[in-house]
Amino acid sequence: MKRGNFITFEGTEGVGKSTQLKHAENWLRSHDIDVVVTREPGGTPLAENIRELLLAPRDEQVVDLTELLLIFAARAQHLNTLILPELNAGRWVLCDRFTDATYAYQGGGRGVSRKQIAILENLVQDALRPDHVILLDAPVEVGMARARKRGELDRFERETVAFFERIRSTYRERAVCWPERYHVLDAAQSIEAVTESLSRTLQSILDVHVADS
Amino acid sequence: MKRGNFITFEGTEGVGKSTQLKHAENWLRSHDIDVVVTREPGGTPLAENIRELLLAPRDEQVVDLTELLLIFAARAQHLNTLILPELNAGRWVLCDRFTDATYAYQGGGRGVSRKQIAILENLVQDALRPDHVILLDAPVEVGMARARKRGELDRFERETVAFFERIRSTYRERAVCWPERYHVLDAAQSIEAVTESLSRTLQSILDVHVADS
Repeated sequence: MKRGNFITFEGTEGVGKSTQLKHAENWLRSHDIDVVVTREPGGTPLAENIRELLLAPRDEQVVDLTELLLIFAARAQHLNTLILPELNAGRWVLCDRFTDATYAYQGGGRGVSRKQIAILENLVQDALRPDHVILLDAPVEVGMARARKRGELDRFERETVAFFERIRSTYRERAVCWPERYHVLDAAQSIEAVTESLSRTLQSILDVHVADS
Repeated sequence: MKRGNFITFEGTEGVGKSTQLKHAENWLRSHDIDVVVTREPGGTPLAENIRELLLAPRDEQVVDLTELLLIFAARAQHLNTLILPELNAGRWVLCDRFTDATYAYQGGGRGVSRKQIAILENLVQDALRPDHVILLDAPVEVGMARARKRGELDRFERETVAFFERIRSTYRERAVCWPERYHVLDAAQSIEAVTESLSRTLQSILDVHVADS
């Protein structure tokens, strides 16, 4: 049984991640690939409980390292009880955010030490990394304008534009470091144009998968 | 302002940890020491929420590493928002269990890699270790008989005696490694005899504290 591909979807707010993830799911199914769609933090009942702890508004200041450890606790559970068993059973796993988001949001956005993130990444994932990262990249103002249209601006209002600029830069830096793994799609284009780029990316991933079989 | 002492209370089930912790609190107060009593996992609202996640019965199998990361997430929050500020304000912190319990229960009891525990200990605590560990040590059967008397045998029934023997051995090994930090009290004695030993230990800690001032 050939192991499935582990594909993660990353990007800042309003870049169309949910839409493109749905498109990838449909495209792969129409090409006879068994697909599992999941998200982080979350993906199992316990990991979703941890997600609730992370997102719950509270008076107590949450220590950065506490947040980081909770994210990786959820990830350890998700990885071992869902992602790895599915990949090993030959299914492809599409995941809405993964460790690249931790580097981008906690590392780039909040200024958490990347060395601390790397220690936890190695502890929880050992050598496992996503086979492919689909990065939907657009200027922060483009995402902001889309979020405003959807009436979802509160996430932006709580953080500064500079915060999201740092997140975007971190994603783009990582894409430069791992060009074989990262697929950067220009998400400032129309939805149709992004969808078309994504289909081409998926076709190239599928071609390699079939050639390796 | 002289930093307070950080004293933790450790031991297997039924050794009288709660009783002796209460005695230490009263003894120190009667010697004009400002004392804060807390526990792990827990000690802050978020850390107590994490404790609930850890203790909640669930159908999903909890991955060992997930449990370990949750314990250290609670610890990072507890340490940074309560323990360290209190110690720095000159108060003494008495804590019902700390990282020695992680080595004993998760490491010795469950067989979690001690290297993984050490990685997280260093990440979360940096160089901080308890100033004093009060280890209440008794043969597993003694604790078991006491728990039976209190009608609290279920914790034992869920685990084997061998599990608690491994925990006790780990505590005792650690006491041998750090004799200057560990105070081993023979908890198989009468409560009064243990209380008396504890008072002598506290007196010696207080003498050093006063001499250093």
